[in-house]
Amino acid sequence: MIPPWQDPALPAGVRAADLLARMTPQEKIAQLYGVWPGSNETPGGDMAPLQHALSEDVDLTELLPHGLGQLTRPFGTSPVEPAEGVARLASLQERVRGANRFRLPALAHEECLTGFTAWQATIFPTPLAWGASFDPALVKEMASAIGASMKSVGIHQGLAPVLDVVRDPRWGRTEESIGEDPYLVATVGTAYVQGLEEAGIVSTLKHFAGYSASRGARNHAPVSIGPRELADVLLPPFEMALRDGGARSVMAAYNDIDGVPAHAHRRLLTELLREDWQFTGTVVSDYFGVSFLETAHQLVDSPAGAAALALAAGVDVELPAVRCLGSGPLDEELVDRAALRVLTQKCELGLLDPDWTPPAAPSAPVDLDPPHMRVLARRLAEESVVLLSNDRTLPLAPEARRIAVLGPLADDPAAMLGCYTFPRHVLLDHPEVPTGVAVPTLLEALRAELPDVEFVDDPVAAELCVVAVGDRSGLFGRGTSGEGCDAADLELPDGQGALLDKALASGTPVVLVVLSGRPYALGRWADRCGAVVQAFFPGEEGGPAVAGVLSGRVNPSGRLPVSVPRDPAGQPWTYLAPPLGQRGEASSLDPTPLFPFGHGLSYTTYDWQEPTVDADAFPTDGETTLRLTVRNTGKRPGAELVQLYLHDPVGKVARPVARLVGYARVPLEAGESAEVHFTFPADLAAYTGPDGNRIVEPGELELRLAASCAEGDVRHAVPVTLTGPERVVGRERRMRCEVRVK
Amino acid sequence: MIPPWQDPALPAGVRAADLLARMTPQEKIAQLYGVWPGSNETPGGDMAPLQHALSEDVDLTELLPHGLGQLTRPFGTSPVEPAEGVARLASLQERVRGANRFRLPALAHEECLTGFTAWQATIFPTPLAWGASFDPALVKEMASAIGASMKSVGIHQGLAPVLDVVRDPRWGRTEESIGEDPYLVATVGTAYVQGLEEAGIVSTLKHFAGYSASRGARNHAPVSIGPRELADVLLPPFEMALRDGGARSVMAAYNDIDGVPAHAHRRLLTELLREDWQFTGTVVSDYFGVSFLETAHQLVDSPAGAAALALAAGVDVELPAVRCLGSGPLDEELVDRAALRVLTQKCELGLLDPDWTPPAAPSAPVDLDPPHMRVLARRLAEESVVLLSNDRTLPLAPEARRIAVLGPLADDPAAMLGCYTFPRHVLLDHPEVPTGVAVPTLLEALRAELPDVEFVDDPVAAELCVVAVGDRSGLFGRGTSGEGCDAADLELPDGQGALLDKALASGTPVVLVVLSGRPYALGRWADRCGAVVQAFFPGEEGGPAVAGVLSGRVNPSGRLPVSVPRDPAGQPWTYLAPPLGQRGEASSLDPTPLFPFGHGLSYTTYDWQEPTVDADAFPTDGETTLRLTVRNTGKRPGAELVQLYLHDPVGKVARPVARLVGYARVPLEAGESAEVHFTFPADLAAYTGPDGNRIVEPGELELRLAASCAEGDVRHAVPVTLTGPERVVGRERRMRCEVRVK
Repeated sequence: MIPPWQDPALPAGVRAADLLARMTPQEKIAQLYGVWPGSNETPGGDMAPLQHALSEDVDLTELLPHGLGQLTRPFGTSPVEPAEGVARLASLQERVRGANRFRLPALAHEECLTGFTAWQATIFPTPLAWGASFDPALVKEMASAIGASMKSVGIHQGLAPVLDVVRDPRWGRTEESIGEDPYLVATVGTAYVQGLEEAGIVSTLKHFAGYSASRGARNHAPVSIGPRELADVLLPPFEMALRDGGARSVMAAYNDIDGVPAHAHRRLLTELLREDWQFTGTVVSDYFGVSFLETAHQLVDSPAGAAALALAAGVDVELPAVRCLGSGPLDEELVDRAALRVLTQKCELGLLDPDWTPPAAPSAPVDLDPPHMRVLARRLAEESVVLLSNDRTLPLAPEARRIAVLGPLADDPAAMLGCYTFPRHVLLDHPEVPTGVAVPTLLEALRAELPDVEFVDDPVAAELCVVAVGDRSGLFGRGTSGEGCDAADLELPDGQGALLDKALASGTPVVLVVLSGRPYALGRWADRCGAVVQAFFPGEEGGPAVAGVLSGRVNPSGRLPVSVPRDPAGQPWTYLAPPLGQRGEASSLDPTPLFPFGHGLSYTTYDWQEPTVDADAFPTDGETTLRLTVRNTGKRPGAELVQLYLHDPVGKVARPVARLVGYARVPLEAGESAEVHFTFPADLAAYTGPDGNRIVEPGELELRLAASCAEGDVRHAVPVTLTGPERVVGRERRMRCEVRVK
Repeated sequence: MIPPWQDPALPAGVRAADLLARMTPQEKIAQLYGVWPGSNETPGGDMAPLQHALSEDVDLTELLPHGLGQLTRPFGTSPVEPAEGVARLASLQERVRGANRFRLPALAHEECLTGFTAWQATIFPTPLAWGASFDPALVKEMASAIGASMKSVGIHQGLAPVLDVVRDPRWGRTEESIGEDPYLVATVGTAYVQGLEEAGIVSTLKHFAGYSASRGARNHAPVSIGPRELADVLLPPFEMALRDGGARSVMAAYNDIDGVPAHAHRRLLTELLREDWQFTGTVVSDYFGVSFLETAHQLVDSPAGAAALALAAGVDVELPAVRCLGSGPLDEELVDRAALRVLTQKCELGLLDPDWTPPAAPSAPVDLDPPHMRVLARRLAEESVVLLSNDRTLPLAPEARRIAVLGPLADDPAAMLGCYTFPRHVLLDHPEVPTGVAVPTLLEALRAELPDVEFVDDPVAAELCVVAVGDRSGLFGRGTSGEGCDAADLELPDGQGALLDKALASGTPVVLVVLSGRPYALGRWADRCGAVVQAFFPGEEGGPAVAGVLSGRVNPSGRLPVSVPRDPAGQPWTYLAPPLGQRGEASSLDPTPLFPFGHGLSYTTYDWQEPTVDADAFPTDGETTLRLTVRNTGKRPGAELVQLYLHDPVGKVARPVARLVGYARVPLEAGESAEVHFTFPADLAAYTGPDGNRIVEPGELELRLAASCAEGDVRHAVPVTLTGPERVVGRERRMRCEVRVK
């Protein structure tokens, strides 16, 4: 007879508890850390700025008999044929299983932000591009494909998505974030989680919490933030991704919040996450984040002390390795709590089943970038391109015969890739290592798109000039965007503005293409360009996507997930600034946008008819439905992006002038109409009041159907009144906005 | 028989209560607002960015019969002979008294940050220069002189000092602040308060609280700050200035903190200020700050609503005028609470006495800049000049015969003046209006200081080149420093770096003089200059002070109250950043200092002998005394600045690597010694823990006797151990550090 923990008929929690009861203290602790098999390949390597002096010389012979919680990035940090990776992982798992008396495998995790971060795997657009697509359904499809491919090679957990809301676009990890609006981040991020989880991969929400609000946009700098801003801006995406997305893991953030490091933040990791939100999955550390409690935050003076503090706060798993949790005696009750969560998750993943085996070494090559994934990458890239301005220069006139293509990013595949991309993330010191997939440059894509055009490099000799500027993503200062590549201001980097000035001086009409990981100030140039196109590291199919927008094959439908400022100075600023913070007159600095959040143009035109509203007065626990008919009045198919903003004129604290509470991407053929329904529950008007409760107040509101967050882009303002008593929105809240396209 | 309220024999509170009981509701409310008699002189004028659409057309005939709380800036905003000002104020007061049935005068307030902000009054150095002096005793002397001169002309209340701790040096009001360390701000600020209050003037602490931490350093931008940072960094100066300085008024800040505007912040204005700190004086609004609750923060939708909200939170007086509190019915209990405070203060000031009269119109001219005040201004200016680097270029060799003096600030009196200076503050659009006092420029002062030297403007033709760069202070963008003149980064403004490069290219040794309202990044130039001298708007005697340092007449003894960074980017940063925030390796931005907080050189040398400590272990409610003998080992008299920093290696939250807990300015003749005693109570090791209590923990500490906050400048590190239980430092706390110079 098999023991209960191996019985697939029993619930996971019961099986995990049974197994736990059979384990020694050391075996339990062994479930709470990992081993990084690839970390010796690039000694120090790109992780050096994180490791400080944490060299780890692990004796696996001594370690493995107790079991092993995690295998960190088993596909390694150098190019490995996928089939060989599968074989290697299988052999690693056999070694892990063979060494412990329960024959338990490890849980294998990998990065997967813009796709499985492995050699030859599809490179999708960065999260900022997902935000620009305003298309959760497509993001879910992408994540589902990513998850399926990871699962097929034996990976269990993916360290994505990043749900940090952009608070300061100078932050290097802005490219990894979805946007500056919590509702956009929440909905798009939740879709990603759904896709990954439905494919059977544990999705890991990061970074919990506050990381994006670091002082001066400096990576790892302290986060000065109060509980209200945290609750209203930074936490909602996590809440939605857990509740609606079913994410099974959460990663703690490196930073402190008001002095309390996230890895030691009991209120966040336990009171909020477990008690309020009823989360039952695992909390994992960011790489070396437990160690940081000793070496960087200095809350304890030993690795064992760091482990004890993190465990007590609510961290369950130390990543990537073993330094702290493996180093000393720990409170057994806390170890049990964490180990039970880990074992329950392993059980859900089948790792406790007697017949579990890793995927077998494949006999044929494994294709991690199959055609259907390239199609997905292309669709998302195309939807994410934002046309910021257009003086009828785009789409390119069919009669154009000579086009100059300039700029350091015009013929560089790196212009399409964010920092969480193989090999950028793991091997930035080795630029000779290719990604393993085809990444056409913008110039290559334009040549393919426009076979009859001659491409030159002198603007004077051309009818039109395309100037591609922007970022090169990297790690820890070795790029202009990416983790640790924080910007002093939003001036185009590396003097690219001068190049643009020169191109403009030629008199040839200029199409500016910005390929970047953050918004840059365009006030000095936008008016002088015939058109401005913005793409945010659009991935392996980004070149063809941008080229398609230029040629007109693609009708642009992306919208800005972050404000594009006029001037480079005065950051941070986002459109959520309260009225006093919006005004520029009291300060010499003007951080306000040239192109507002939500802005984006199309090659067709849309008519927004007068909306109807079911009820213009409804109780604070009620809802209303807005109906809006949108018609494509132009000659091309396109997709309109209907945005719904809430303007709340009076409240108990300073609030944004308006904030996004709904949106609908509406694909329309020429001449076609669609009716968009927004079901708006009063809960969506809730905000955190001075006493910390999330409240819905009775009173007047304005629901703005708009083409961006700017007041000038409001197409219809619908006044509604909330009636009845002020209400506290508790755990039962349903902060959801339904959109039905007829 | 006189009524109780007029009886000087009774306590002020009793008299005020008696008077209050006799008043109508309208009469009570009239005590809570002001009239700005000079505001029509410059319609809109410099205050326009604050007023928004708040035009105020007050009918005094209707208003005054109810009485009047405040007269705002009665000396006006255009040049008025002081004697005429006295006469005008007396006549205004007669009009106020004559119109109300109690014959109560108004309380007259003026600005007085760098001296009484009136035509022809002494202009002292700015607060950042007070900080650089590290000389509370001298600051107290200055404030006492300012107070005496204000009192002599009929003013009751002064709107100073600014106790905002510098959190982002790009903030325009950095010049109005004392420094980036709360202990320095607290001690120097408290000294100012003591001086003003001892002269009989009500001192007003501003801005309560958070203003200096505005997002992106933008004036009026929201303040994202948590309760711990607020408690440990921003509030201590207010606490000390109330407890030890006896300030009788506090001004609320414009900003919101985590969404709650300070003017509506009951927890700050009432729970903390009144209940915890037992403050009994008045809380006044910042100019138009009550209106802002409606027009900017949008917490209410009417002036009356703003008044009700502010009163309920704990604001007592609306400045400068009458818009909100005069506009509607108010809760009488709240009105009584505020009016009682105002009347009690008026009573203390003698304004309820039957024989009260304003100072009579003087028959002779009034001198607001008498010789003894110029001497004080000179002494403070001299002590505030900081010698940042010196390659034996200074003091100037006696044989120097030709000196080039360059730079836009070399021959401009404005280089010496901060924005709260007559007429800069009130009449910036009228630069033709002089200050009314003599302000020698640097060049004029150098001519006077070095009569045998020929001053030229071509560095090639000179033995030495003095380059004066820095700020021009102004309001709302009309300067490079000052209220509303916020900087994008810490690059020398107006391209002055290029001028400096040019001077350096001449090959002539360069002495760089920075005259500024904030620190600027000097990494590009400092190594190439023979010497670098920093002065922070040193006032009317600033020119001679800097010239004296250059000539060697003055041995520099100022120390940096703010860090001077190497690079202009990556702000905000102060030396209080916790260890993780200190590191630059995780971010491409490096905000760390070139010259650290506390740094400053001298023309003599000092020996710091081995210190002794009374007890190297003492209880968490005990204290110890350090004794250090310092000797002037050089040939000139000077003043050494002994700094005591606390390094606490392990704690419950992320804390600064070290923070200032004591300092002593020690004047020493050549060859002279002095023993400095620091009595260090364990309370000084307290910090706010994760649960919000200020705690002292047992454990190891390091007391660092140092010449700056940098680890390389630690002269002696004294390990001490706190014993006994962890202790919560409550109201009885005695966060004080005694320094005795033998």
